[in-house]
Amino acid sequence: MSHINDTIVALATPPGQGAIGIIRVSGSNTIPIVNELFRGKDLTKVASHTIHLGTIRDDENKIIDEVLVSVFKGPHSYTKEDVIEISSHGSQYILQKILSLLIKKGARLAKPGEFTQKAFLNGRFDLAQAEAVADLIASENASMQQTAMKQMRGGFSDEIKKLREELIHFASMIELELDFAEEDVEFADRQGLIKLINKIQTLIQSLIASFEYGNVIKSGVPTVIAGKPNAGKSTLLNALLNEEKAIVSEVAGTTRDFIEDQIYLDGIAFRFIDTAGIRETDDKVESIGVQRTLEKMKQASLVIYLVDLMNDSIDSIEEQLQGLRKSSVPSLIVGNKVDEAKPELKALLEDENAVFISAKGKVHLDDLKARLQAIVAETKSSSEVIVTNTRHLQSLQQTDEALNRVIEGINMEMSNDLVAQDIRSALFHLGEITGEVTTDDLLENIFSKFCIGK
Amino acid sequence: MSHINDTIVALATPPGQGAIGIIRVSGSNTIPIVNELFRGKDLTKVASHTIHLGTIRDDENKIIDEVLVSVFKGPHSYTKEDVIEISSHGSQYILQKILSLLIKKGARLAKPGEFTQKAFLNGRFDLAQAEAVADLIASENASMQQTAMKQMRGGFSDEIKKLREELIHFASMIELELDFAEEDVEFADRQGLIKLINKIQTLIQSLIASFEYGNVIKSGVPTVIAGKPNAGKSTLLNALLNEEKAIVSEVAGTTRDFIEDQIYLDGIAFRFIDTAGIRETDDKVESIGVQRTLEKMKQASLVIYLVDLMNDSIDSIEEQLQGLRKSSVPSLIVGNKVDEAKPELKALLEDENAVFISAKGKVHLDDLKARLQAIVAETKSSSEVIVTNTRHLQSLQQTDEALNRVIEGINMEMSNDLVAQDIRSALFHLGEITGEVTTDDLLENIFSKFCIGK
Repeated sequence: MSHINDTIVALATPPGQGAIGIIRVSGSNTIPIVNELFRGKDLTKVASHTIHLGTIRDDENKIIDEVLVSVFKGPHSYTKEDVIEISSHGSQYILQKILSLLIKKGARLAKPGEFTQKAFLNGRFDLAQAEAVADLIASENASMQQTAMKQMRGGFSDEIKKLREELIHFASMIELELDFAEEDVEFADRQGLIKLINKIQTLIQSLIASFEYGNVIKSGVPTVIAGKPNAGKSTLLNALLNEEKAIVSEVAGTTRDFIEDQIYLDGIAFRFIDTAGIRETDDKVESIGVQRTLEKMKQASLVIYLVDLMNDSIDSIEEQLQGLRKSSVPSLIVGNKVDEAKPELKALLEDENAVFISAKGKVHLDDLKARLQAIVAETKSSSEVIVTNTRHLQSLQQTDEALNRVIEGINMEMSNDLVAQDIRSALFHLGEITGEVTTDDLLENIFSKFCIGK
Repeated sequence: MSHINDTIVALATPPGQGAIGIIRVSGSNTIPIVNELFRGKDLTKVASHTIHLGTIRDDENKIIDEVLVSVFKGPHSYTKEDVIEISSHGSQYILQKILSLLIKKGARLAKPGEFTQKAFLNGRFDLAQAEAVADLIASENASMQQTAMKQMRGGFSDEIKKLREELIHFASMIELELDFAEEDVEFADRQGLIKLINKIQTLIQSLIASFEYGNVIKSGVPTVIAGKPNAGKSTLLNALLNEEKAIVSEVAGTTRDFIEDQIYLDGIAFRFIDTAGIRETDDKVESIGVQRTLEKMKQASLVIYLVDLMNDSIDSIEEQLQGLRKSSVPSLIVGNKVDEAKPELKALLEDENAVFISAKGKVHLDDLKARLQAIVAETKSSSEVIVTNTRHLQSLQQTDEALNRVIEGINMEMSNDLVAQDIRSALFHLGEITGEVTTDDLLENIFSKFCIGK
């Protein structure tokens, strides 16, 4: 963005009526602009990190609100510029009025993410850290929050920077050789370099591999509960959901948005795909039902397949298992009504590594949950740092490809300038992640996804 | 509420995702409780009205968020107790997690309005002022905001207290006479007292009268645009609405909720009642159409009655005017298509004090607006202070009735103790307004209407 020196203003709290609304102002004119509207202390004379009670007045000296004004003097602020946060009563009219007055006095409305963009441009943190701020705000569970927090505090950036430093050392050796090209010296031991690149690639590939788990953290696991009519699908779903609801409602009024046919296990959301289509088939011919179930299952990452241990038959179960084996989606076979199971049916499922529960009696639901967690844990990579951002994934993949070309070039004894070019390409893509390399378009694209006021 | 000493906690910003979320804590244990979760400065050792950057950690020392903590030491806080506001990233997960941790450490979830109730109980302001806080948060336009602001800053309370003091003086004289009942002395000059009561009643009645305008401020003016088919009703509505939309959208993104078929003139909302019913009749026999229009008009406080000056006839207009006169709702007659008007039709309407416009050409719309404003201004009372609260209205009416009984008692030379009882009743009802007289039920009822966190 071109106007880094502008003083910007935005509502920083969610829209809607609340006890408190916060308006955030940042830029070199922050203090004089707010001071013109504020009656209380002279804000040009107060210390940083102090709070002042007073009123905001319009041009006719009418009181718009009694407010608290928090003053942060650059560089000791989020954006490293002078920042003021005005805490007013949470009326949309009042907040809009104060925004209008600030704009009248010379501030302009901030674009989405512009405060964080200023923080990035002023060197408060790198690009991957800035992106983690948006992830943190969007975080809906412990895993998302912890992953975003690690990234915001620089864990991911440190990893990338380490790789990049090693590559830079490598690159400088090759570039040195270019300077002495006519003398045909070799500063960089080729075999040593290939080893180094292999090491770097191992790290990059483990980061790339972590994206699958990162995606599970971010988007949850789309899950279908399938099985024949009356196997107990709805009972199981309700048993899983209700327990969760009870836990979450401990803090009343704050979590309503969270629960929508999904449960969290160890911070991972298992989102239950609407199986209305499957339920519909309950009245129809069985074979069609099974067919439709298989269709629905394709949308899922995981199928919980419920078998009725009390009323089903060996032949029918074997047929169901056969159908299940045709599906490419991983499934967990669950024997339901275990407390009234026919022994021969239970024995049949024991070979299938099934979990045995009673959905109605809420028996062994913990076993089922442990198995679900174990399935997700398998996707966990060895990397401490988890990649959740598609942009980072792409840059890592491009780095990896460039490094492949470097190794190929060395093995084929290609000329140094071609090898050097591929190394620079790898450095470029790694640099994109942390923002050592940026373009206006890239920044525009990243920050436009932020909310306004951040 | 019984637990005034509890340390309470609530989300103070609107629910939903935003850049910032604020959690507010108030009570004697505020600082130790927050200090247990906060890593940064030792909050027991910081000055009031200071802000501190740090982290909130869970029991496993995991960072839940980087936060800013604002410390207000009682009595220099909203509730006059120790208050801390925790400003975190606006993720519902994070906010919920921090709330849970605070509750674990000994705070409890605040009830709606409980912070303001504490402020009232700790003597920060009286009850009418506390109620104004909720009005301020709910304020949607300049008039509501200004009225609530005056009330919050004590304008209404001052008026009530003045009246009450005069009455108390009066009461003490009568009570004194009771003490000397056997001696049959008269400390209170009866004619002087009647004069005083008359003066007080004049004030109370002007406050009561102001409620009508207060209601207009709070709820707007339900308005119907009526008239024969093709008189230009939709064109006029759009002309009025569009202009308004253009003005409001100057501050993008903040006002969307405001405009829903209503315009603001001088801070008063004219809410247009859905006249779909009227529009429907466009295809039907005219007499039925007129009938239905009249029905619709009953829901309105004001009718803008549109007459087509170009295509209508004298007979038809006279019939319409006759119909209009039957309606009990005040109406403003508007001659439309003035630029192509038949002179005789215009002349006819001039006698009706009509406004002449062209809705399509947007001609003289300002005249129309000025007339709408003038109609509302007529409801304005002479009182500087405007009553908007039904509870206050009732207390004022009960005071008025009690004072009527006092005068009646004096005139009928009833015994002093009966007169004194009616004066006490008047004092009681006045005291209810400012909270000098309260009951638990009354407080419960008032504060339960607040939002949580205020």
